[in-house]
Amino acid sequence: MQLYGGIEAGGTKFICAVAAEPTAEPIETLVIPTTMPQETIQQTVAFFKRHNVRGLGVASFGPIDLHPKSPTYGYITATPKPGWRNTDLLGPLKAALNVPIGFDTDVNGAALAEWRYGGGQGTSSVVYFTVGTGIGGGVVIDGQMVHGLMHPEMGHIPVRRHPDDTYAGHCPYHADCLEGMACGPAMQARWGKPASELPADHVAWEYEAHYLAQAVSTCLYALSPERVILGGGVMHQAQLFPLIRQKTVNAINGYLQEDALTQHSDSLIIPPGLGDRAGATGALELARLAAG
Amino acid sequence: MQLYGGIEAGGTKFICAVAAEPTAEPIETLVIPTTMPQETIQQTVAFFKRHNVRGLGVASFGPIDLHPKSPTYGYITATPKPGWRNTDLLGPLKAALNVPIGFDTDVNGAALAEWRYGGGQGTSSVVYFTVGTGIGGGVVIDGQMVHGLMHPEMGHIPVRRHPDDTYAGHCPYHADCLEGMACGPAMQARWGKPASELPADHVAWEYEAHYLAQAVSTCLYALSPERVILGGGVMHQAQLFPLIRQKTVNAINGYLQEDALTQHSDSLIIPPGLGDRAGATGALELARLAAG
Repeated sequence: MQLYGGIEAGGTKFICAVAAEPTAEPIETLVIPTTMPQETIQQTVAFFKRHNVRGLGVASFGPIDLHPKSPTYGYITATPKPGWRNTDLLGPLKAALNVPIGFDTDVNGAALAEWRYGGGQGTSSVVYFTVGTGIGGGVVIDGQMVHGLMHPEMGHIPVRRHPDDTYAGHCPYHADCLEGMACGPAMQARWGKPASELPADHVAWEYEAHYLAQAVSTCLYALSPERVILGGGVMHQAQLFPLIRQKTVNAINGYLQEDALTQHSDSLIIPPGLGDRAGATGALELARLAAG
Repeated sequence: MQLYGGIEAGGTKFICAVAAEPTAEPIETLVIPTTMPQETIQQTVAFFKRHNVRGLGVASFGPIDLHPKSPTYGYITATPKPGWRNTDLLGPLKAALNVPIGFDTDVNGAALAEWRYGGGQGTSSVVYFTVGTGIGGGVVIDGQMVHGLMHPEMGHIPVRRHPDDTYAGHCPYHADCLEGMACGPAMQARWGKPASELPADHVAWEYEAHYLAQAVSTCLYALSPERVILGGGVMHQAQLFPLIRQKTVNAINGYLQEDALTQHSDSLIIPPGLGDRAGATGALELARLAAG
């Protein structure tokens, strides 16, 4: 059987999976804690050495270098994660495993998976946000992941404070950017308990929707995607979706006169069609594309 | 001689030009004031009836409908400009002039022209802002204008106020969005005279750079373009560029560790290589592409 390998390379764990198709149930999955680079990458290599995959996909936390001609192509670059700054992730995998490897950001991978197999099917463009320990955003237009100077880093767009919000912000670079105000740790720091323990009618969700609606609005103005997909741990709180939709429509205030926004925002601003499997499916889809 | 026709359809004037190539000096140019749709379009048609063009390009103010399958394809849609809301612009041109017609936003056209002939040559992606009576932004990635739900409408992204700025904002939809705070009329209302009459050391430019640097930063996070090109009347103030670059680099604060930003922002955030001809060249390039 032809198999694909996928790595969701996250700041907390590397999830390695082997599957017959991107959307198939993996034959085997291994979760490796993200410790120091050499140890984590060695364990990853050992796993895939046991499997005969025809392609590997790496959907990584960032920022990463995606320029094939760059001397640091395949590196994790300016991450604040201790020990991982300027780490060659792709090189050791290529050296150890003689297979084609696709490489992109975790959120570009998830956007790709949602575009092809999930909530973005049949559209021309998808923005995928993950809202969890951090906030990231990926973009796929006409089936292509958006790269350029680097790659989208949606988590760090400037946002306007909620008028009652006195929390300083969690981002070490910008304090009160989108991620700084709306990631899971920001919620925990602001309210004194994890987001998952806050009741659905807590004012925290009104604040959270305030920030995420700005992210959605900004995307609609800057990119005009046909779907905005919001995933990640914080978005398990289903009460957020109607709040975000309403605040987005209110903020745009009739300027973008598309029924898809004004009448059907519940089909425009949606949870991942693949649920929590968007990331894993993205990594496997990168493998499938690399294998050709 | 084979000729192309270009229309820069603006809210103040329609600039119609006929040229042998998109970058060639036009053989003839006619400036038509934008009065009521029927009158303006009739004058436009009359001009092109006098010329035997093999393709026409229309680079229009917006919002516009760019979905070829939509019943209102080719319409100007939700504009606040009196008389022009839901106006069929493309239909009468097609009916009267039997040539292929390319149609896009004015700023997508300018982004296309800059990507192919101007300051974005050799890059994979360009964002083009115009800062004048209004603010708009267009996006070209790998030679394709970005469309989706609609098209980019960068002028209306939410921005953070300058801490000393008490001006309410000029946008009829959002008051203090980017356009509301930083367009030419906002500067005039805030300072009591046109932007062009404010001295280069006026604090107005510090405010203006505050808002435009947010627009540039947001673009870099959301789209990661290889060039951000700032054109339009307000950007004739050359002192704005160093201010905007410095504020952008300061705001990103080391998070995007690309030399192109941190060391060479004067090559990343630039005026149009085509100068004030970016718009006209864009319309003619749309014509060239339509003619095939």
